[in-house]
Amino acid sequence: MSDAVSAQVVADVQQFYARHMQLLDAGDADGWARTFTEAGVFAPPSLPEPVRGRAALAAGVRASAAGLAEAAEVHRHVLSMVHVDPRDDGTLAVRSYAQIFATPRGGEPRLHLMCVCEDVLVREQGELLVKERRVARDDRP
Amino acid sequence: MSDAVSAQVVADVQQFYARHMQLLDAGDADGWARTFTEAGVFAPPSLPEPVRGRAALAAGVRASAAGLAEAAEVHRHVLSMVHVDPRDDGTLAVRSYAQIFATPRGGEPRLHLMCVCEDVLVREQGELLVKERRVARDDRP
Amino acid sequence: MSDAVSAQVVADVQQFYARHMQLLDAGDADGWARTFTEAGVFAPPSLPEPVRGRAALAAGVRASAAGLAEAAEVHRHVLSMVHVDPRDDGTLAVRSYAQIFATPRGGEPRLHLMCVCEDVLVREQGELLVKERRVARDDRP
Repeated sequence: MSDAVSAQVVADVQQFYARHMQLLDAGDADGWARTFTEAGVFAPPSLPEPVRGRAALAAGVRASAAGLAEAAEVHRHVLSMVHVDPRDDGTLAVRSYAQIFATPRGGEPRLHLMCVCEDVLVREQGELLVKERRVARDDRP
Repeated sequence: MSDAVSAQVVADVQQFYARHMQLLDAGDADGWARTFTEAGVFAPPSLPEPVRGRAALAAGVRASAAGLAEAAEVHRHVLSMVHVDPRDDGTLAVRSYAQIFATPRGGEPRLHLMCVCEDVLVREQGELLVKERRVARDDRP
Repeated sequence: MSDAVSAQVVADVQQFYARHMQLLDAGDADGWARTFTEAGVFAPPSLPEPVRGRAALAAGVRASAAGLAEAAEVHRHVLSMVHVDPRDDGTLAVRSYAQIFATPRGGEPRLHLMCVCEDVLVREQGELLVKERRVARDDRP
């Protein structure tokens, strides 16, 4: 694992993740799904099988957003210690820490989950997209 | 909202925010106020009216720092998922998550507030400055 | 303290820290020790004397990792608000906030410590390394 990567690639990844997570936390299901490839795969720790494809990804966000609205809680997804590793096939392997912070309306914010996120990012028509994501929770090693 | 922005602009914004928040948390009221434009506006969630201008901004930090010293508590402001959106007028619209962490002397650190921060940054004599800031708390949607 | 630094230097520092902290949290004692110079110095808040040299640095990680394994707890080190200040001697003075998050197996994650980290980074054969690190805890001002 090398650190050598162009500053523009690092900046592009940072901009991508910032928009990607802000879309998710805003409950913009379709906007978020479009930050994955058409057949993008997301293997979250909470499901037995990975979610595959934009329609299923968007449906997952809609369900989550509805649950949060009912619970009157705001979630924020924060990535940190993002390491970008360009692969020979042109994809970017990115490993980061992912935190979910939760704030109930009128209540105290809390760290809800601490995870490790492993992504494969690809470029299509110049835009970065998630091709594959695996997330592991620190409380379930 | 596009992700396309030069790596140098992203790096400049990151450097700016790091210094900006470290000045604030160090209680350097005048140094922090100088990271706003002369007539800079800060609309925090805790006040009915925005704070306008460097003198008022600095006074606010002095009051906060005195309160924290009395309470024997250290606050740290952390921005994450920072998305930089260059506008046609040359300003930068930046949206990020802002967390305030609080640590009492001899006590446990805690996440005090989770917010969304929307800034308009401008350049004057080559230096980035905050022209306008709006902060919204997640617990008060 | 100026913000002017090339985007590539900022990106290099970010990549370095991401790998550096992921090595630490993975318990890769020797890999982590190699991200310091041969005679690298780490002055943590928990010890009366700084740790000096790669062998001692690695031994410290091995001891910590063993303790965490026994406690069935995962720690994650997260840097934020990282400010890079290039010095005339070619070194980089970097000041950041350092958080340690802890997650017990089957339990809730928590913010364990909030610190300020002051590093001197140098380049050897193109690679960034920590020459000197001082960490101060917010709960012990």
